[in-house]
Amino acid sequence: MSLTPEQQAEIETQRSETQPTRRATVPALEEVLFEATPVLDHGFVRVIDYMGDDGAVVQAARVSYGRGTRRVSEDRGLIRYLLRHRHTTPFEMCEIKYHVKLPIFVARQWIRHRTANVNEYSARYSILDKEFHIPEQAQLASQSAANHQGRDQVLGGDEAKRVLEILHEDAEQTYAHYEEMLNENADGERLNEDGDGLARELARMNLTLNTFTQWYWKTDLHNLLHFLSLRADDHAQYEIRVYADAMLETLKRWVPLTHEAFMDYRMGSLELSAKALQVVRDLLDGKPVDQKAIGLSPREWRELMASLGRDS
Amino acid sequence: MSLTPEQQAEIETQRSETQPTRRATVPALEEVLFEATPVLDHGFVRVIDYMGDDGAVVQAARVSYGRGTRRVSEDRGLIRYLLRHRHTTPFEMCEIKYHVKLPIFVARQWIRHRTANVNEYSARYSILDKEFHIPEQAQLASQSAANHQGRDQVLGGDEAKRVLEILHEDAEQTYAHYEEMLNENADGERLNEDGDGLARELARMNLTLNTFTQWYWKTDLHNLLHFLSLRADDHAQYEIRVYADAMLETLKRWVPLTHEAFMDYRMGSLELSAKALQVVRDLLDGKPVDQKAIGLSPREWRELMASLGRDS
Amino acid sequence: MSLTPEQQAEIETQRSETQPTRRATVPALEEVLFEATPVLDHGFVRVIDYMGDDGAVVQAARVSYGRGTRRVSEDRGLIRYLLRHRHTTPFEMCEIKYHVKLPIFVARQWIRHRTANVNEYSARYSILDKEFHIPEQAQLASQSAANHQGRDQVLGGDEAKRVLEILHEDAEQTYAHYEEMLNENADGERLNEDGDGLARELARMNLTLNTFTQWYWKTDLHNLLHFLSLRADDHAQYEIRVYADAMLETLKRWVPLTHEAFMDYRMGSLELSAKALQVVRDLLDGKPVDQKAIGLSPREWRELMASLGRDS
Amino acid sequence: MSLTPEQQAEIETQRSETQPTRRATVPALEEVLFEATPVLDHGFVRVIDYMGDDGAVVQAARVSYGRGTRRVSEDRGLIRYLLRHRHTTPFEMCEIKYHVKLPIFVARQWIRHRTANVNEYSARYSILDKEFHIPEQAQLASQSAANHQGRDQVLGGDEAKRVLEILHEDAEQTYAHYEEMLNENADGERLNEDGDGLARELARMNLTLNTFTQWYWKTDLHNLLHFLSLRADDHAQYEIRVYADAMLETLKRWVPLTHEAFMDYRMGSLELSAKALQVVRDLLDGKPVDQKAIGLSPREWRELMASLGRDS
Repeated sequence: MSLTPEQQAEIETQRSETQPTRRATVPALEEVLFEATPVLDHGFVRVIDYMGDDGAVVQAARVSYGRGTRRVSEDRGLIRYLLRHRHTTPFEMCEIKYHVKLPIFVARQWIRHRTANVNEYSARYSILDKEFHIPEQAQLASQSAANHQGRDQVLGGDEAKRVLEILHEDAEQTYAHYEEMLNENADGERLNEDGDGLARELARMNLTLNTFTQWYWKTDLHNLLHFLSLRADDHAQYEIRVYADAMLETLKRWVPLTHEAFMDYRMGSLELSAKALQVVRDLLDGKPVDQKAIGLSPREWRELMASLGRDS
Repeated sequence: MSLTPEQQAEIETQRSETQPTRRATVPALEEVLFEATPVLDHGFVRVIDYMGDDGAVVQAARVSYGRGTRRVSEDRGLIRYLLRHRHTTPFEMCEIKYHVKLPIFVARQWIRHRTANVNEYSARYSILDKEFHIPEQAQLASQSAANHQGRDQVLGGDEAKRVLEILHEDAEQTYAHYEEMLNENADGERLNEDGDGLARELARMNLTLNTFTQWYWKTDLHNLLHFLSLRADDHAQYEIRVYADAMLETLKRWVPLTHEAFMDYRMGSLELSAKALQVVRDLLDGKPVDQKAIGLSPREWRELMASLGRDS
Repeated sequence: MSLTPEQQAEIETQRSETQPTRRATVPALEEVLFEATPVLDHGFVRVIDYMGDDGAVVQAARVSYGRGTRRVSEDRGLIRYLLRHRHTTPFEMCEIKYHVKLPIFVARQWIRHRTANVNEYSARYSILDKEFHIPEQAQLASQSAANHQGRDQVLGGDEAKRVLEILHEDAEQTYAHYEEMLNENADGERLNEDGDGLARELARMNLTLNTFTQWYWKTDLHNLLHFLSLRADDHAQYEIRVYADAMLETLKRWVPLTHEAFMDYRMGSLELSAKALQVVRDLLDGKPVDQKAIGLSPREWRELMASLGRDS
Repeated sequence: MSLTPEQQAEIETQRSETQPTRRATVPALEEVLFEATPVLDHGFVRVIDYMGDDGAVVQAARVSYGRGTRRVSEDRGLIRYLLRHRHTTPFEMCEIKYHVKLPIFVARQWIRHRTANVNEYSARYSILDKEFHIPEQAQLASQSAANHQGRDQVLGGDEAKRVLEILHEDAEQTYAHYEEMLNENADGERLNEDGDGLARELARMNLTLNTFTQWYWKTDLHNLLHFLSLRADDHAQYEIRVYADAMLETLKRWVPLTHEAFMDYRMGSLELSAKALQVVRDLLDGKPVDQKAIGLSPREWRELMASLGRDS
């Protein structure tokens, strides 16, 4: 993580002040409010604001006038019921805002989640810092042959070494050229007395996709859960999954009952198609099952058997 | 407004409790938090949660690390600049949640604003209260001949009296029949020992559109401004405009700088088309202007001259 | 269904004209284009435009330059893969537009699906026709005790008769009063020489929720599938389900491969939570399973066992 | 533009086939359907599908049963009225789908328009082609001092030459390293017998932001107009404006009446704030006006006077 002392001081100042509020407040989340959790080599995630708590989900489901006098066990039951039956609107009543620093190639995946509000640091207006993501060697995997958009084995030492060398050198070089074209560095110092300097909106095109950017990202709890279910999943690219993992920790602090229900019902869940459900029922009844007769493709059959922990 | 003593007590309980928070907090809005502002005969608007303040708009525009040390005058200038140039994303970084009680025919207009989160009281699950909107006599206007979706003069005494009589009697009768079909009243008491009672999801179809419903409605500041610019406008139907007016008061407490800029740049603003702008420039230069030559329709010409305070 | 001869003639005129187009075209859907399928007593659904077909889903998934030379079997496999793994964006590349006539209480449920475009017939501007929904006797069910938002047994003869009487009479009376307040009928004839007539935006508040309205409703294929999965489901209210059923028929004509995959993977599917999946695996392995030990609530256990076709 | 002969042939094949349809069809747009309009050095825009026409806007505004018998002049008047008064929903009833090839730094601006459907060519799954944007020398402007996110004068010859040299060489080098890390080129040929090749989702991080990507992008007419009003505007970055300009041409073919109204009312329009409107009225009345007394900031005053064609 690359917070400057000035940035760290700004964060500490903000953390040191409290105000009284009548709003729903979550002490466990307040504890870490504004604090940056490091992610990847230069990135971070930090919660900078939130609205609502588990109770707000319950209130919305009941359209109630006050906080209510129900017990925690009833709230827990209702939240689990809502999540299990995909009654999603009460979860939209809570909101959270993150400040995230992340490589551009990760930002490009992330932004595809459209139901969120975003303010990104502008490279038309400002000069990006010299920070780029270089993977750890353990992450340098080869292309998966089975899954066309995944990874396979970690590369051997020499090949990995060459990859790291390339990534380092190209990022250094393209950034140096970025400054040269701007005729200015990130501290605003002019480099060459004679040059005018290329417009920032143009010079940025020479940066590589592992350059870090940052944004404010705000979404409601329902859409956060949807984001996490896709991005904290095993199939997500590692470099975005580590962000989702860090956000899962903030979810646990913020709305522990929703987090618990989410882990039970979304993460690790399996959707059985009507035909797959028939297979399960037949298996349980001891009836013979036949992939072809039931109409599953060989691939679906393999996926199902693997999910059920059986040989296919 | 029709809050029961129990509802009023729930609200008071919630208002009496404060917690310390590190979040941006707005004392002027906290003052009225949870309080119901009466609107129409049985409706209300009350703020039940919020996230962010004027400072959060500025922080988002700068993607900053802390609260910043800028002065209020700089924040004001930036907010006015953002609103004037329709840089909308920083305003999306604040969020507000209302609890609203409103007639169904108003709710049907309101729900057309899609970028909001809504939880409505369910008439499939619960029995609606016996509350319906009867306009004040001063609001009983005739159909406008000029504006096909507006109102004209207030009705004469006898005609108005008959309208009020109809609205009263029909609402009373259809609600009594609603209970009879349900075989149950809003207090859950069974009316007829022998009947089973029609399902709530069916019985509700007999209610008139002036019956009150209620919902939690949450949106971000940008979309709230958009809603207010349309619904606090003179062209909006009076029965939704009174809600927008009440919400404008909460906007003023919540984000006073944004409210001021909104009143200056959105409310009362006029969009000049390229051709209309040419007319204005010609008039200022003392040149002759000609409706036909410039290519404006007679209707556009009249609208423009009226906006400029000139005879057409 | 209540199409006037004039409306029927307009539809027939539009059906009689064809144009050549280079766009993807679906003959099976063209066959019924513009035709109204009756739903409920006065309602209908009709497709009035569409964009794309099954092939367009495949093209989008491949970001291809042309129609491609792949075989139908490959398209089918890819569409099933996309739907099974919830790769939703390619389905957003097809669009359909319906004209729907439906009771207001159904419209109020329907409009909750926000990712659609809607133009509703305006009762501020126009006078609604005298058409209201009266259920068939077979649909007059009592409130379900088990499912708080559902129905139970059909009402007995006398109770049903009284319900129908109420619905008829109240709708007739409130509509007659609507015309009286407007001082105008739906044909635009003035009723009383002396009256001015109440503004339409006000008079409408006296109508009951079973009055029919109509709208143009346009959405993409992904959101249509989401709508249908919720509204063609057994848990949906019957009066909206009949619309969803009629739309399923148009889906089958429009995108038969997507329809087939949808019926296999969405309709009748079951989502197993991580814990429920463990129960299934244990059952298949012949291990003892215990509701409490596994951490399922009694309600979840009953739901799971019912889904698996076992006694709980 | 860089269409391969195979791609060009696929496009030609698709252009050569027509089908009869009952849908609204626009011959002027059909003429160019599927054809790629070159934009920048390797990019293009092409319309690949559409739904609706000017008449569909009118039909939606009227929720009509057929095509109607109104005259073009009435349609024109209604469309202008709708656009002038920002009645946006009828414009949402038309839809268009583009295939666009564009540099990644342009794609990052474009994707901020969230109310559209997108399928992008996947660099997790596939290898990007060796195509990157090198600006023409006339576009190599310096950073604007007045407008922090704009451009000023064109760079002098030597500075421009050096910029082009850098952009060329760095793009060549990072792409060559991309292939080396992948151990594979865009034609799928293995480069080094011994290496495994880095996963595609990782290797892409070494590409520069001027690398071309491509996507299918679909939106409705209302949101297209909003996109064009921002991106065909003088303040937009040149490299996205050229795409917007090419799309304006397709708009003109598709919906000529809407295009005309859009050019009149949106492009080149000026929004006067309440205070600015007062200034205009005072000027027209020959009254003295005073920037401070009226409450405009010096900057606003300058902007207003410039818009009115007056010295400030």
